[in-house]
Amino acid sequence: MIKQDMKNKMEIARQKVEKAIKKDNGTTLMSTGMTGDDARLAKAAVAGGAKILEANHPAVTLARGIEGVSTMGDAEYVRHELPLKSMLECVRGVRAVVGPDIYLTVGFPGSFTEREPIPLTSEDFRQLALAGADGVHCHKSSLADLKDVVTLAHENGLLVDSYIGKKSDLHQFGIGAEDITEVKKSCLSNARNWRRLYWYDDRNEL
Amino acid sequence: MIKQDMKNKMEIARQKVEKAIKKDNGTTLMSTGMTGDDARLAKAAVAGGAKILEANHPAVTLARGIEGVSTMGDAEYVRHELPLKSMLECVRGVRAVVGPDIYLTVGFPGSFTEREPIPLTSEDFRQLALAGADGVHCHKSSLADLKDVVTLAHENGLLVDSYIGKKSDLHQFGIGAEDITEVKKSCLSNARNWRRLYWYDDRNEL
Repeated sequence: MIKQDMKNKMEIARQKVEKAIKKDNGTTLMSTGMTGDDARLAKAAVAGGAKILEANHPAVTLARGIEGVSTMGDAEYVRHELPLKSMLECVRGVRAVVGPDIYLTVGFPGSFTEREPIPLTSEDFRQLALAGADGVHCHKSSLADLKDVVTLAHENGLLVDSYIGKKSDLHQFGIGAEDITEVKKSCLSNARNWRRLYWYDDRNEL
Repeated sequence: MIKQDMKNKMEIARQKVEKAIKKDNGTTLMSTGMTGDDARLAKAAVAGGAKILEANHPAVTLARGIEGVSTMGDAEYVRHELPLKSMLECVRGVRAVVGPDIYLTVGFPGSFTEREPIPLTSEDFRQLALAGADGVHCHKSSLADLKDVVTLAHENGLLVDSYIGKKSDLHQFGIGAEDITEVKKSCLSNARNWRRLYWYDDRNEL
Protein backbone atom coordinates (compact mmCIF):
# COMPACT_ATOMS: atom_id res chain seq x y z
CA MET A 1 0.00 0.00 0.00
CA ILE A 2 0.90 3.70 -0.40
CA LYS A 3 3.14 3.09 -3.37
CA GLN A 4 3.33 6.42 -5.18
CA ASP A 5 4.53 8.31 -2.07
CA MET A 6 7.29 5.75 -1.72
CA LYS A 7 8.30 6.14 -5.35
CA ASN A 8 8.33 9.92 -4.90
CA LYS A 9 10.60 9.66 -1.88
CA MET A 10 12.99 7.37 -3.76
CA GLU A 11 13.02 9.69 -6.77
CA ILE A 12 13.93 12.66 -4.54
CA ALA A 13 16.69 10.57 -2.98
CA ARG A 14 18.04 9.53 -6.40
CA GLN A 15 18.11 13.15 -7.45
CA LYS A 16 20.18 14.09 -4.39
CA VAL A 17 22.86 11.66 -5.51
CA GLU A 18 22.67 12.61 -9.17
CA LYS A 19 22.91 16.31 -8.37
CA ALA A 20 25.84 15.70 -6.03
CA ILE A 21 27.71 13.72 -8.71
CA LYS A 22 26.95 16.33 -11.35
CA LYS A 23 28.03 19.20 -9.11
CA ASP A 24 31.26 17.43 -8.22
CA ASN A 25 32.04 16.68 -11.89
CA GLY A 26 31.29 12.98 -12.15
CA THR A 27 32.01 11.76 -8.65
CA THR A 28 31.13 12.97 -5.14
CA LEU A 29 32.17 12.74 -1.53
CA MET A 30 30.64 10.26 0.94
CA SER A 31 31.58 10.38 4.60
CA THR A 32 31.02 7.73 7.27
CA GLY A 33 32.17 6.46 10.67
CA MET A 34 31.80 9.13 13.35
CA THR A 35 31.19 11.75 10.65
CA GLY A 36 28.04 9.88 9.66
CA ASP A 37 26.48 9.13 13.04
CA ASP A 38 27.37 12.06 15.30
CA ALA A 39 25.60 15.29 14.38
CA ARG A 40 28.57 17.36 15.61
CA LEU A 41 30.91 15.74 13.11
CA ALA A 42 28.33 15.24 10.35
CA LYS A 43 27.93 19.01 10.23
CA ALA A 44 31.68 19.36 9.82
CA ALA A 45 31.79 16.70 7.09
CA VAL A 46 29.09 18.49 5.13
CA ALA A 47 30.88 21.82 5.60
CA GLY A 48 33.93 20.01 4.19
CA GLY A 49 32.04 19.01 1.04
CA ALA A 50 30.42 15.65 1.82
CA LYS A 51 27.05 15.25 0.12
CA ILE A 52 26.40 11.64 1.11
CA LEU A 53 26.60 10.48 4.72
CA GLU A 54 26.52 6.94 6.00
CA ALA A 55 25.64 6.06 9.59
CA ASN A 56 26.36 2.44 10.39
CA HIS A 57 25.83 0.18 13.36
CA PRO A 58 29.40 -1.11 13.87
CA ALA A 59 30.61 2.50 14.22
CA VAL A 60 27.80 3.29 16.66
CA THR A 61 28.59 0.07 18.52
CA LEU A 62 32.04 1.59 19.11
CA ALA A 63 30.59 4.99 20.01
CA ARG A 64 28.33 3.45 22.67
CA GLY A 65 31.02 1.06 23.90
CA ILE A 66 28.76 -1.99 23.50
CA GLU A 67 30.46 -4.92 25.24
CA GLY A 68 33.48 -2.63 25.73
CA VAL A 69 34.71 -3.15 22.17
CA SER A 70 37.11 -0.56 20.84
CA THR A 71 38.23 -1.75 17.41
CA MET A 72 36.18 -2.03 14.23
CA GLY A 73 37.19 -5.69 13.92
CA ASP A 74 35.77 -6.49 17.35
CA ALA A 75 32.68 -4.38 16.69
CA GLU A 76 31.74 -6.59 13.74
CA TYR A 77 31.13 -9.44 16.17
CA VAL A 78 28.77 -7.59 18.50
CA ARG A 79 27.16 -4.97 16.26
CA HIS A 80 23.95 -7.02 16.08
CA GLU A 81 23.40 -6.24 19.79
CA LEU A 82 22.95 -2.52 19.18
CA PRO A 83 19.27 -1.57 19.51
CA LEU A 84 17.66 -0.23 16.32
CA LYS A 85 16.59 2.83 18.30
CA SER A 86 20.24 3.87 18.64
CA MET A 87 20.47 4.07 14.84
CA LEU A 88 17.14 5.90 14.63
CA GLU A 89 18.45 8.45 17.13
CA CYS A 90 21.59 8.97 15.00
CA VAL A 91 19.65 9.35 11.76
CA ARG A 92 17.17 11.76 13.32
CA GLY A 93 19.94 13.89 14.79
CA VAL A 94 22.16 13.97 11.71
CA ARG A 95 19.20 14.80 9.47
CA ALA A 96 18.11 17.62 11.80
CA VAL A 97 21.54 19.22 11.55
CA VAL A 98 22.58 18.65 7.91
CA GLY A 99 19.23 19.50 6.34
CA PRO A 100 17.18 17.81 3.61
CA ASP A 101 19.62 17.91 0.66
CA ILE A 102 22.23 15.48 1.96
CA TYR A 103 21.77 11.82 0.97
CA LEU A 104 21.74 9.81 4.19
CA THR A 105 22.16 6.03 4.13
CA VAL A 106 22.05 3.84 7.21
CA GLY A 107 23.40 0.45 8.20
CA PHE A 108 21.55 -1.17 11.08
CA PRO A 109 21.47 -4.56 12.80
CA GLY A 110 20.31 -6.97 10.12
CA SER A 111 21.27 -4.93 7.06
CA PHE A 112 24.70 -6.60 7.17
CA THR A 113 25.56 -10.29 7.28
CA GLU A 114 25.44 -10.52 11.07
CA ARG A 115 27.14 -13.09 13.26
CA GLU A 116 23.80 -13.62 14.95
CA PRO A 117 21.15 -13.37 12.22
CA ILE A 118 18.62 -10.59 12.73
CA PRO A 119 15.22 -10.99 11.06
CA LEU A 120 14.02 -7.76 9.44
CA THR A 121 10.52 -6.35 9.31
CA SER A 122 8.88 -3.68 7.21
CA GLU A 123 8.39 -1.72 10.45
CA ASP A 124 12.19 -1.41 10.90
CA PHE A 125 12.48 0.22 7.49
CA ARG A 126 9.44 2.40 8.09
CA GLN A 127 11.01 3.79 11.26
CA LEU A 128 14.32 4.47 9.49
CA ALA A 129 12.51 6.29 6.67
CA LEU A 130 10.55 8.40 9.16
CA ALA A 131 13.74 9.19 11.09
CA GLY A 132 15.10 10.78 7.92
CA ALA A 133 17.05 8.11 6.02
CA ASP A 134 17.15 8.14 2.23
CA GLY A 135 18.55 4.68 1.91
CA VAL A 136 19.80 1.52 3.51
CA HIS A 137 23.48 0.60 3.60
CA CYS A 138 23.49 -3.12 2.97
CA HIS A 139 26.24 -5.72 3.35
CA LYS A 140 24.26 -8.86 2.66
CA SER A 141 26.31 -11.66 1.17
CA SER A 142 23.66 -13.49 -0.84
CA LEU A 143 21.45 -12.13 -3.60
CA ALA A 144 18.39 -13.76 -2.04
CA ASP A 145 18.90 -11.90 1.26
CA LEU A 146 19.72 -8.73 -0.62
CA LYS A 147 16.49 -9.04 -2.54
CA ASP A 148 14.57 -9.26 0.74
CA VAL A 149 16.28 -6.07 1.93
CA VAL A 150 15.52 -4.28 -1.35
CA THR A 151 11.88 -5.35 -1.21
CA LEU A 152 11.38 -4.11 2.35
CA ALA A 153 13.34 -0.92 1.66
CA HIS A 154 11.39 0.00 -1.47
CA GLU A 155 8.09 -0.74 0.24
CA ASN A 156 9.04 2.05 2.63
CA GLY A 157 10.51 4.52 0.16
CA LEU A 158 14.15 3.73 0.85
CA LEU A 159 16.88 3.11 -1.72
CA VAL A 160 19.61 0.54 -1.11
CA ASP A 161 23.37 0.71 -1.59
CA SER A 162 24.93 -2.73 -1.61
CA TYR A 163 28.34 -4.28 -2.18
CA ILE A 164 30.37 -7.14 -3.52
CA GLY A 165 33.18 -8.89 -1.66
CA LYS A 166 35.48 -11.86 -1.71
CA LYS A 167 34.25 -15.06 -0.12
CA SER A 168 37.62 -15.31 1.63
CA ASP A 169 37.18 -11.95 3.44
CA LEU A 170 37.27 -12.18 7.25
CA HIS A 171 33.90 -10.45 7.47
CA GLN A 172 31.33 -11.06 4.75
CA PHE A 173 30.56 -7.61 3.41
CA GLY A 174 29.03 -8.34 0.04
CA ILE A 175 27.82 -10.64 -2.68
CA GLY A 176 30.66 -13.04 -3.39
CA ALA A 177 32.58 -12.12 -6.53
CA GLU A 178 36.23 -13.07 -6.74
CA ASP A 179 37.11 -11.16 -9.91
CA ILE A 180 35.68 -8.87 -12.58
CA THR A 181 34.31 -11.83 -14.55
CA GLU A 182 32.24 -12.95 -11.59
CA VAL A 183 31.08 -9.40 -10.96
CA LYS A 184 29.89 -9.18 -14.57
CA LYS A 185 28.23 -12.59 -14.43
CA SER A 186 26.47 -11.70 -11.22
CA CYS A 187 25.24 -8.43 -12.65
CA LEU A 188 23.96 -9.87 -15.90
CA SER A 189 22.19 -12.84 -14.38
CA ASN A 190 20.49 -10.59 -11.86
CA ALA A 191 19.93 -7.61 -14.08
CA ARG A 192 16.43 -6.98 -12.86
CA ASN A 193 17.42 -6.76 -9.20
CA TRP A 194 20.67 -5.10 -9.99
CA ARG A 195 19.08 -2.17 -11.72
CA ARG A 196 16.98 -1.51 -8.65
CA LEU A 197 20.01 -1.71 -6.39
CA TYR A 198 22.73 0.13 -8.20
CA TRP A 199 20.81 3.27 -8.81
CA TYR A 200 23.68 5.40 -9.90
CA ASP A 201 25.44 2.81 -11.98
CA ASP A 202 22.44 1.34 -13.72
CA ARG A 203 22.90 3.08 -16.99
CA ASN A 204 26.48 1.96 -17.42
CA GLU A 205 27.04 -1.11 -19.52
CA LEU A 206 29.21 -3.75 -17.95
CA MET B 1 19.45 3.07 53.52
CA ILE B 2 22.57 1.21 52.33
CA LYS B 3 24.92 3.92 53.52
CA GLN B 4 28.26 2.19 53.93
CA ASP B 5 28.32 0.87 50.35
CA MET B 6 27.71 4.42 49.15
CA LYS B 7 30.54 5.74 51.31
CA ASN B 8 32.81 3.04 49.94
CA LYS B 9 31.97 3.96 46.36
CA MET B 10 32.64 7.63 47.04
CA GLU B 11 35.93 6.84 48.76
CA ILE B 12 37.08 4.80 45.74
CA ALA B 13 36.08 7.69 43.48
CA ARG B 14 37.98 10.21 45.64
CA GLN B 15 41.05 7.99 45.47
CA LYS B 16 40.90 7.94 41.66
CA VAL B 17 41.19 11.72 41.61
CA GLU B 18 43.83 11.87 44.34
CA LYS B 19 45.95 9.23 42.61
CA ALA B 20 45.61 11.04 39.28
CA ILE B 21 46.71 14.35 40.79
CA LYS B 22 49.60 12.71 42.60
CA LYS B 23 50.73 10.85 39.48
CA ASP B 24 50.58 14.02 37.40
CA ASN B 25 52.56 16.00 40.00
CA GLY B 26 49.89 18.16 41.59
CA THR B 27 47.41 18.57 38.80
CA THR B 28 45.77 16.25 36.27
CA LEU B 29 44.02 16.18 32.92
CA MET B 30 40.24 16.23 32.53
CA SER B 31 38.66 15.83 29.11
CA THR B 32 35.10 16.61 28.04
CA GLY B 33 32.83 17.36 25.06
CA MET B 34 32.91 14.55 22.51
CA THR B 35 35.92 13.04 24.27
CA GLY B 36 33.75 12.48 27.34
CA ASP B 37 30.57 11.08 25.81
CA ASP B 38 31.65 9.04 22.78
CA ALA B 39 33.51 5.85 23.68
CA ARG B 40 35.59 6.07 20.47
CA LEU B 41 37.04 9.43 21.49
CA ALA B 42 37.09 8.76 25.23
CA LYS B 43 39.48 5.91 24.59
CA ALA B 44 41.73 8.29 22.65
CA ALA B 45 41.57 10.92 25.41
CA VAL B 46 42.61 8.37 28.01
CA ALA B 47 45.41 7.14 25.74
CA GLY B 48 46.46 10.79 25.57
CA GLY B 49 46.68 11.04 29.36
CA ALA B 50 43.23 12.11 30.56
CA LYS B 51 42.35 10.57 33.93
CA ILE B 52 39.05 12.39 34.46
CA LEU B 53 36.31 12.39 31.84
CA GLU B 54 33.16 14.47 31.82
CA ALA B 55 30.11 13.55 29.77
CA ASN B 56 27.56 16.35 29.68
CA HIS B 57 24.09 16.80 28.27
CA PRO B 58 24.62 19.95 26.16
CA ALA B 59 27.40 18.16 24.26
CA VAL B 60 25.20 15.08 23.77
CA THR B 61 22.35 17.37 22.70
CA LEU B 62 24.67 18.47 19.87
CA ALA B 63 25.74 14.89 19.13
CA ARG B 64 22.12 13.77 18.76
CA GLY B 65 21.08 16.91 16.88
CA ILE B 66 18.21 17.61 19.29
CA GLU B 67 16.03 20.35 17.71
CA GLY B 68 18.72 20.64 15.02
CA VAL B 69 21.01 22.76 17.21
CA SER B 70 24.64 22.90 16.18
CA THR B 71 26.33 25.39 18.51
CA MET B 72 26.99 25.03 22.23
CA GLY B 73 25.21 28.34 22.85
CA ASP B 74 22.02 27.05 21.20
CA ALA B 75 22.35 23.69 22.93
CA GLU B 76 22.13 25.36 26.35
CA TYR B 77 18.53 26.30 25.55
CA VAL B 78 17.32 22.82 24.60
CA ARG B 79 19.60 20.52 26.59
CA HIS B 80 16.81 19.82 29.12
CA GLU B 81 14.96 17.95 26.34
CA LEU B 82 17.59 15.22 26.11
CA PRO B 83 16.30 12.00 27.72
CA LEU B 84 18.25 10.84 30.77
CA LYS B 85 18.67 7.47 29.05
CA SER B 86 20.90 9.11 26.42
CA MET B 87 23.30 10.11 29.19
CA LEU B 88 23.08 6.66 30.78
CA GLU B 89 23.99 5.11 27.43
CA CYS B 90 27.03 7.41 27.13
CA VAL B 91 28.23 6.70 30.67
CA ARG B 92 27.78 2.95 30.25
CA GLY B 93 29.67 2.93 26.98
CA VAL B 94 32.53 5.16 28.07
CA ARG B 95 32.97 3.18 31.29
CA ALA B 96 33.02 -0.11 29.36
CA VAL B 97 35.85 1.14 27.17
CA VAL B 98 38.04 3.19 29.55
CA GLY B 99 37.93 0.76 32.47
CA PRO B 100 37.39 1.26 36.20
CA ASP B 101 40.30 3.60 37.07
CA ILE B 102 39.17 6.70 35.19
CA TYR B 103 37.07 9.19 37.17
CA LEU B 104 33.87 9.75 35.22
CA THR B 105 31.58 12.66 36.01
CA VAL B 106 28.28 13.31 34.24
CA GLY B 107 26.09 16.33 33.60
CA PHE B 108 22.48 15.47 32.84
CA PRO B 109 19.17 17.30 32.43
CA GLY B 110 18.54 18.91 35.82
CA SER B 111 22.12 18.92 37.10
CA PHE B 112 22.57 22.36 35.47
CA THR B 113 20.43 25.47 35.85
CA GLU B 114 18.04 24.57 33.04
CA ARG B 115 15.85 26.93 31.04
CA GLU B 116 12.96 24.60 31.79
CA PRO B 117 13.47 23.37 35.36
CA ILE B 118 13.82 19.61 35.69
CA PRO B 119 12.92 18.05 39.05
CA LEU B 120 15.45 15.43 40.16
CA THR B 121 14.81 12.14 41.90
CA SER B 122 17.02 9.72 43.77
CA GLU B 123 16.25 7.19 41.02
CA ASP B 124 17.99 9.40 38.42
CA PHE B 125 21.17 9.34 40.48
CA ARG B 126 20.85 5.63 41.18
CA GLN B 127 20.71 4.90 37.46
CA LEU B 128 23.74 7.10 36.76
CA ALA B 129 25.73 5.36 39.49
CA LEU B 130 24.79 1.94 38.14
CA ALA B 131 25.72 3.01 34.60
CA GLY B 132 29.24 3.66 35.88
CA ALA B 133 29.45 7.31 36.93
CA ASP B 134 31.70 8.34 39.82
CA GLY B 135 30.24 11.77 40.16
CA VAL B 136 27.79 14.39 39.03
CA HIS B 137 28.86 17.47 37.08
CA CYS B 138 26.73 20.23 38.53
CA HIS B 139 26.08 23.80 37.33
CA LYS B 140 23.43 24.82 39.82
CA SER B 141 23.38 28.52 40.54
CA SER B 142 22.04 28.54 44.09
CA LEU B 143 23.50 26.84 47.14
CA ALA B 144 20.07 25.51 48.11
CA ASP B 145 19.66 23.70 44.77
CA LEU B 146 23.26 22.54 44.92
CA LYS B 147 22.62 21.12 48.37
CA ASP B 148 19.69 19.11 46.98
CA VAL B 149 21.94 17.73 44.25
CA VAL B 150 24.66 16.83 46.75
CA THR B 151 22.16 15.10 49.03
CA LEU B 152 20.71 12.96 46.22
CA ALA B 153 24.17 12.24 44.81
CA HIS B 154 25.67 11.12 48.12
CA GLU B 155 22.61 8.97 48.87
CA ASN B 156 23.57 7.05 45.74
CA GLY B 157 27.34 6.94 46.17
CA LEU B 158 28.12 9.77 43.73
CA LEU B 159 30.46 12.69 44.35
CA VAL B 160 29.70 16.15 42.96
CA ASP B 161 31.85 18.68 41.15
CA SER B 162 30.31 22.13 41.16
CA TYR B 163 31.21 25.62 40.03
CA ILE B 164 31.04 29.32 40.65
CA GLY B 165 30.14 31.94 38.05
CA LYS B 166 29.26 35.57 37.56
CA LYS B 167 25.62 36.54 37.86
CA SER B 168 26.06 38.52 34.64
CA ASP B 169 27.04 35.43 32.61
CA LEU B 170 24.74 34.67 29.66
CA HIS B 171 24.18 31.14 30.96
CA GLN B 172 24.11 30.54 34.71
CA PHE B 173 26.81 27.97 35.30
CA GLY B 174 27.55 28.33 38.97
CA ILE B 175 27.00 29.83 42.38
CA GLY B 176 27.19 33.59 41.92
CA ALA B 177 30.52 35.03 43.07
CA GLU B 178 31.75 38.18 41.39
CA ASP B 179 35.25 38.23 42.84
CA ILE B 180 37.63 36.36 45.12
CA THR B 181 36.15 38.03 48.22
CA GLU B 182 32.73 36.66 47.39
CA VAL B 183 34.17 33.24 46.65
CA LYS B 184 35.84 33.24 50.09
CA LYS B 185 32.71 34.49 51.81
CA SER B 186 30.60 31.86 50.10
CA CYS B 187 33.02 29.12 51.06
CA LEU B 188 33.34 30.12 54.70
CA SER B 189 29.63 30.61 55.29
CA ASN B 190 28.88 27.24 53.74
CA ALA B 191 31.89 25.38 55.02
CA ARG B 192 29.96 22.27 55.93
CA ASN B 193 28.43 21.81 52.48
CA TRP B 194 31.53 23.05 50.77
CA ARG B 195 33.71 20.40 52.28
CA ARG B 196 31.41 17.75 50.92
CA LEU B 197 31.44 19.32 47.47
CA TYR B 198 35.00 20.31 46.87
CA TRP B 199 36.50 16.97 47.60
CA TYR B 200 39.93 17.69 46.31
CA ASP B 201 40.24 21.22 47.64
CA ASP B 202 38.76 20.63 51.05
CA ARG B 203 42.01 20.58 52.95
CA ASN B 204 43.19 23.89 51.55
CA GLU B 205 42.56 26.93 53.69
CA LEU B 206 40.96 29.86 51.96
